Amino acid sequence: MATYRTEHDAFGPVDIPADRYWGAQTQRALGVFEVGEERFPGCLTHAFGLHKMAAAHANLRCGVLDARLGEAIVAAAAELRCGRFDEHFPLTIWQTGSGTQTNMNANEVIANRANERLGQPLGTKSPVHPNDHVNASQSSNDSFPSVMHMTAAIELEDRLVPALGGLRDSLRERATAFADVLKIARTHLMDAVPTTLGRTFDGFTAQVDNALARLRDTMPRLLVLPQGGTAAGTGLNAPPGFDVAFCEEAGRLSGLAFRPNPCKVEGMAAHDALLELSGMLNVIAASFTKIANDLRWMSSGPNSGLGELLLPEDGLTSSIMPGKRNPTIAEVMVQAAMQVAGNHVTVTMAASSGNFELNVAKPVLVYNVLQSIRLLADCANVVATRLIPGIQPAGERLDRDLQSPLLAVTALNPVIGYDKAAAITRHATARKITPRAAAIELGLLDGETFDRLVDLRRMAGR
Amino acid sequence: MATYRTEHDAFGPVDIPADRYWGAQTQRALGVFEVGEERFPGCLTHAFGLHKMAAAHANLRCGVLDARLGEAIVAAAAELRCGRFDEHFPLTIWQTGSGTQTNMNANEVIANRANERLGQPLGTKSPVHPNDHVNASQSSNDSFPSVMHMTAAIELEDRLVPALGGLRDSLRERATAFADVLKIARTHLMDAVPTTLGRTFDGFTAQVDNALARLRDTMPRLLVLPQGGTAAGTGLNAPPGFDVAFCEEAGRLSGLAFRPNPCKVEGMAAHDALLELSGMLNVIAASFTKIANDLRWMSSGPNSGLGELLLPEDGLTSSIMPGKRNPTIAEVMVQAAMQVAGNHVTVTMAASSGNFELNVAKPVLVYNVLQSIRLLADCANVVATRLIPGIQPAGERLDRDLQSPLLAVTALNPVIGYDKAAAITRHATARKITPRAAAIELGLLDGETFDRLVDLRRMAGR
Amino acid sequence: MATYRTEHDAFGPVDIPADRYWGAQTQRALGVFEVGEERFPGCLTHAFGLHKMAAAHANLRCGVLDARLGEAIVAAAAELRCGRFDEHFPLTIWQTGSGTQTNMNANEVIANRANERLGQPLGTKSPVHPNDHVNASQSSNDSFPSVMHMTAAIELEDRLVPALGGLRDSLRERATAFADVLKIARTHLMDAVPTTLGRTFDGFTAQVDNALARLRDTMPRLLVLPQGGTAAGTGLNAPPGFDVAFCEEAGRLSGLAFRPNPCKVEGMAAHDALLELSGMLNVIAASFTKIANDLRWMSSGPNSGLGELLLPEDGLTSSIMPGKRNPTIAEVMVQAAMQVAGNHVTVTMAASSGNFELNVAKPVLVYNVLQSIRLLADCANVVATRLIPGIQPAGERLDRDLQSPLLAVTALNPVIGYDKAAAITRHATARKITPRAAAIELGLLDGETFDRLVDLRRMAGR
Amino acid sequence: MATYRTEHDAFGPVDIPADRYWGAQTQRALGVFEVGEERFPGCLTHAFGLHKMAAAHANLRCGVLDARLGEAIVAAAAELRCGRFDEHFPLTIWQTGSGTQTNMNANEVIANRANERLGQPLGTKSPVHPNDHVNASQSSNDSFPSVMHMTAAIELEDRLVPALGGLRDSLRERATAFADVLKIARTHLMDAVPTTLGRTFDGFTAQVDNALARLRDTMPRLLVLPQGGTAAGTGLNAPPGFDVAFCEEAGRLSGLAFRPNPCKVEGMAAHDALLELSGMLNVIAASFTKIANDLRWMSSGPNSGLGELLLPEDGLTSSIMPGKRNPTIAEVMVQAAMQVAGNHVTVTMAASSGNFELNVAKPVLVYNVLQSIRLLADCANVVATRLIPGIQPAGERLDRDLQSPLLAVTALNPVIGYDKAAAITRHATARKITPRAAAIELGLLDGETFDRLVDLRRMAGR
Repeated sequence: MATYRTEHDAFGPVDIPADRYWGAQTQRALGVFEVGEERFPGCLTHAFGLHKMAAAHANLRCGVLDARLGEAIVAAAAELRCGRFDEHFPLTIWQTGSGTQTNMNANEVIANRANERLGQPLGTKSPVHPNDHVNASQSSNDSFPSVMHMTAAIELEDRLVPALGGLRDSLRERATAFADVLKIARTHLMDAVPTTLGRTFDGFTAQVDNALARLRDTMPRLLVLPQGGTAAGTGLNAPPGFDVAFCEEAGRLSGLAFRPNPCKVEGMAAHDALLELSGMLNVIAASFTKIANDLRWMSSGPNSGLGELLLPEDGLTSSIMPGKRNPTIAEVMVQAAMQVAGNHVTVTMAASSGNFELNVAKPVLVYNVLQSIRLLADCANVVATRLIPGIQPAGERLDRDLQSPLLAVTALNPVIGYDKAAAITRHATARKITPRAAAIELGLLDGETFDRLVDLRRMAGR
Repeated sequence: MATYRTEHDAFGPVDIPADRYWGAQTQRALGVFEVGEERFPGCLTHAFGLHKMAAAHANLRCGVLDARLGEAIVAAAAELRCGRFDEHFPLTIWQTGSGTQTNMNANEVIANRANERLGQPLGTKSPVHPNDHVNASQSSNDSFPSVMHMTAAIELEDRLVPALGGLRDSLRERATAFADVLKIARTHLMDAVPTTLGRTFDGFTAQVDNALARLRDTMPRLLVLPQGGTAAGTGLNAPPGFDVAFCEEAGRLSGLAFRPNPCKVEGMAAHDALLELSGMLNVIAASFTKIANDLRWMSSGPNSGLGELLLPEDGLTSSIMPGKRNPTIAEVMVQAAMQVAGNHVTVTMAASSGNFELNVAKPVLVYNVLQSIRLLADCANVVATRLIPGIQPAGERLDRDLQSPLLAVTALNPVIGYDKAAAITRHATARKITPRAAAIELGLLDGETFDRLVDLRRMAGR
Repeated sequence: MATYRTEHDAFGPVDIPADRYWGAQTQRALGVFEVGEERFPGCLTHAFGLHKMAAAHANLRCGVLDARLGEAIVAAAAELRCGRFDEHFPLTIWQTGSGTQTNMNANEVIANRANERLGQPLGTKSPVHPNDHVNASQSSNDSFPSVMHMTAAIELEDRLVPALGGLRDSLRERATAFADVLKIARTHLMDAVPTTLGRTFDGFTAQVDNALARLRDTMPRLLVLPQGGTAAGTGLNAPPGFDVAFCEEAGRLSGLAFRPNPCKVEGMAAHDALLELSGMLNVIAASFTKIANDLRWMSSGPNSGLGELLLPEDGLTSSIMPGKRNPTIAEVMVQAAMQVAGNHVTVTMAASSGNFELNVAKPVLVYNVLQSIRLLADCANVVATRLIPGIQPAGERLDRDLQSPLLAVTALNPVIGYDKAAAITRHATARKITPRAAAIELGLLDGETFDRLVDLRRMAGR
Repeated sequence: MATYRTEHDAFGPVDIPADRYWGAQTQRALGVFEVGEERFPGCLTHAFGLHKMAAAHANLRCGVLDARLGEAIVAAAAELRCGRFDEHFPLTIWQTGSGTQTNMNANEVIANRANERLGQPLGTKSPVHPNDHVNASQSSNDSFPSVMHMTAAIELEDRLVPALGGLRDSLRERATAFADVLKIARTHLMDAVPTTLGRTFDGFTAQVDNALARLRDTMPRLLVLPQGGTAAGTGLNAPPGFDVAFCEEAGRLSGLAFRPNPCKVEGMAAHDALLELSGMLNVIAASFTKIANDLRWMSSGPNSGLGELLLPEDGLTSSIMPGKRNPTIAEVMVQAAMQVAGNHVTVTMAASSGNFELNVAKPVLVYNVLQSIRLLADCANVVATRLIPGIQPAGERLDRDLQSPLLAVTALNPVIGYDKAAAITRHATARKITPRAAAIELGLLDGETFDRLVDLRRMAGR
């Protein structure tokens, strides 16, 4: 049987489950917003821990916070950062568009925990007060968007960039292994010219390598924080230098080079930097789609498909066709990419919707960005470890496909010209003979010259 | 300390936590797909319960299933339908694009539970076998898309349609209450002509009413199921009449008029019907955005905004501006609409991605559709119960706004013509006098005629 | 050397090229909006002709317009409807969000032409005045959205529906022709079970047939017009019954069953009906993508691809690979579908952006809807006439693909059960023998029974 | 009466209007693709001129092309670059997904013109042959994507970047002018705290300044060209060093630092760089939406809206409300942004759709990117020149709005704490007195202290 304690806020008393660290505003919000089940991922809550640690340190440096209270706040926020209070953030993302309720949730949890560390029961709001001390020199207006940037930057550094690095390396390894494996190249899905399987994987590698470059370029604008702007970007109630101090402390704690947004209101009224990031994630999703589809198709069949690649077994099969194997991981990759592309539209709408001094689509915006990062990173990890390394070429099939007669004639252009090469194709098709025979019949080339020009390996650029 | 049992599938033995009802294919899938945290909502799992009940009944009717096994399956599936096994569906949506693993998860849970009911321990696959009996006459190819349609239809009927009905009624009630409240109409955000607050709410009501009509129109295509197509729409291994029997049984159990898709392959290779539904949800989201934004703006300020409406208090406030009240619920509504619009793009991409006999973006597709339904329904409920009924007009402000001099001249057009009415506006603006005074000064109208023509209430069409 | 005449509007004199029928507001707009090159298609201008004809008739019926002026307006508007004044609409779509400048453009052209017919030079605004007579009982607020609905409805009836009908018929004809052509079905791109090529085309046919049903269902909401709402939906300056009279006249002239929107403000402040239509076009685009991709893939190679279909020649080839043939028309179809899907997002944003009594994203919204209709219709025509009828199956290849050993085992499930069928697959794969040989070796089936069960034609459901 | 000449290509004779410079493949394409009206903008055709100039120079350097032919090609291509042959590109963008027909169109026009310069009639294909000489060392596979990058880079440099620079400067000028104009800040559209109008424009300026930084960052990846990859990225038929020579020549001619893509196949099979650019354009569109909406709202009313800003007159008005002024240019800005956002989705789908060695959604992709650039640049120019410079604050209204009693209390937090400040708000609201009076009545502050703390200018951070 649940027991409750009573807390007070500006609007009066509120009953709260006795073992929960959240406070009155969080509890009220639970009663107002009963929409959906989507919650912020742990990384955002943890970034709030980092944020409130940095804020307390900055407040201490600026002389705004008493040392005893400041240290208690730091200690409590550090626990939040480590994930100890994940269960104490009950709200869904469907809340006020400023993220105020989650900022208050963090303030309340930290205040309660800090007071507890200082020997007080939950709910006293004393000596540590959620607004006056934990939220000191801050507003939700600047704290929540700062946390949005911080958590996105951390997720990139800790999750996505390493995952993409691993994927790039696994692709490059296969590219090297397949450098001399001849295969047919297809344009418009049609037989084109000889190429190598290594080049195919080179293309994938380049895409992922560029993804890393893109994220690197976008990072500087992500590390810029509006903290210190407080209400509406005015800096009201923040001591001078708070913005710099905060960024330094956050940087010291996280290893990331945060710096103050010189135009605070830009950082809370617009979210162009996060939309830019989402655009980069969207590019990565497009790259993933290309890679996954190529893998699916090259391994298709195997009998009635292209059958060029063998994907590693995963033990999964059909519910009706016993033993049938499917390109399951590649399908996950494509589906995740679709989600990221859709999320990007949500982020576009959210980022476009700011009015005056505040954008009030923050929760939905950051939720989608974080989901996209997570999905891309998880996919990269699974693909890099379970799919790519085990890929093998189906040599026989690759060889068979290279027999396509259409491959030959392009190599003749520089010698006999496009129109004569086309004539060979026409003649060969009409008479159902090889281009070599057609060239000889038409008196355009002798067999020896033909064979010298039509060297598959040289045509493939090896 | 966890204990395990060993199950076998086509690929050999697999260890499974002893208290879990899922089987070997589910367990293998857990090891393959470690992507994201998003799970199917309960409604899909429950619809699988309904589906497998109907399939068992249909198999019994077609003489394909032994009565004892069939009854055990029906009983187990009924428990699934009621939510008893929600914890036994551990996979995320990031799985094979056919939904095979979740279909197998359902087959395995039901088989284990049916065997348990028949006195066997978990894992025996006997006498009830997940493929041969629970999945009898079915493939994931036809079962999963059938469940997609079924769960979407049920969610519409049970969740969204009632919620929209409630919202429509709440809006209509306010429209009636405000029928005679004069206010200014704005076009291009600029002072236009007098209207009534009732008309504003009439517009909202019409939008929601049309939403219901749209859902009604799309329902027939949603009630069409590809069940009976089995592998690739061929009907292989399904007895004659299975499709009809299944739809009848599913209809009997659910009250929804399901019927067989005459072109089975269309229902598994394409998901046009679900994309159509998503398009309708997208329209509803657009309507919600319009309504929510109007409410936000009309209640803005109150001092420095439009201040025409008073929204009910919700007890939530700013972390720095004590007592500040914000249009929180309307902001949730707008954010949810953004999510739905983004989801719709994901659904568009997913629905466009079918190849040959199968679309393999089913999990991501249905996940997004179901999330959109849930968000719209929850928003409708919260808005209908906590926001709309308590809305009040701010009479004084409404009156003040009607004093706008620009309102008058449009009423003069039919009498003096557009150009002379424009001359009055010009003259009034230049001389900073009222249009009435300008009309008199210009000798275009006497005061009495002016007053007769410029009757705000009549102009507002009341 | 251009000569000019001078016209006057509410803001003073404006110089206009002497041979142009537009007037002062159009000329001013040209100087304000220098953005982009996109213009409304002719169908919108023509629909404005129809609209102004119907409005003049309705004004005559309501006694608001003098017969001589009314008849001159009708005659001038009829010329507009026929395309005679296409060159006199110089504005791009990047104008005021109400479409006011294009409405004024129509008013001005018709007034000038009507006056010309009545013996006056251009620019007199007398006896026919663009605002007082051509625009009588109307506002841009209700006229432009009415034209949006009218032109969309006409484009559906005259362009898209017939084109889709033709496409459906061409697909159905091929489906019938291919009814007995066995081919392999693929799920997850992998060899699955036998099916028929006819069934593949049945699937396409069903998609297009459903498209027609969707458009039919959306039409009633499209035929509802806000005309009569005038400024802000109030009906100010429109005589009683004008809305009904207008719809009757428009219906009489066009053959479409237009009817008044009972909630005028809904029809000008929101554009849910057009967003719904765009959602339907988006579904059609998804269907087109599926169909085009299947055609591309089935005709791919031909050597190193699937090579199942032969597409008709089109005389186009590569700039470097002489004689190479590509699935050009199918690529157009896919690209057009991408445009429609992107347009749909623009329409979603536009339709979501209404405020109060007016949505001011009308030009961009209707432009995108009309482009989508046009692209889908043109594609349908080209595909129906130049692509589908000439498609032929590549019989040899279809037969070869049916040799896939994996096809067999699914048919054994009902007799020996899923696990034993899986054992056959495993055994056959391990020993590189046929499933038939494996079944015999394992003692599960004799050869005769195997052959009876594994009948490709019966498996394919023929 | 049109006269025709006959040209020949690989498939036989084709009749071509005698005065057209295009050749057989272009003429055939006209007969195949009758879809839509959208054409590539001139900038793409002109970039093709630059491209073929650079290719001819590179071929000359590599010894592949005879000097006489090479010089004729350079001269003809230079005319193409200058716009002389715009009328000779009749195809719409709805063509093969590789852009082959437009590449061939360029080859044919240049060959015909070069031959004409060398004294031959049109249609001889001699001495200059469209494939063998104009297209020498090239394929559509590498030429078209190279032109896509080149034209996008040129459009950025010549059109968008200068336009954004002008917009940024105009905003900054107003920001400086308004630096000391106090106004109310709004968060959640609600009265918040005092700020300055200069800060509002600072925010806009920062957004546009960041846009320039984003484009700068994306440029390096845009300047990378796949030229030299020829068919399928193999380099077949291109002499060694062609890629470097081409980039050097293109750079010399254009002033842009083009460089070879080290992974040619990446640059033709994927279009990640253009998708990245589209993502940046999407960010700019979001910024434009924010800025335009703020301007619309701040100038709304003026009586019944916010009325804080006066926008310059543009001479445009309503068709029914004489003299009504609307924020027309801001509405164009918002609509253009919607188009860019929708285009971005099209580009996302197009960029995701590559298969193997080629992406075949090139025409639709580049068309949308170029349209987005054009729209954003044109908007920036119009807004910078016709909207921003004339903006004036409505001083009286700004002052009135600052009287909001809610503004005061936030400044008290640091002195009396959040809860007591909230008590003042509550007390003032309940008793309908000022916060100052409430503070005194509650004994929390004397009047003098209150006045010292609540200094609007200091609160606004000035």
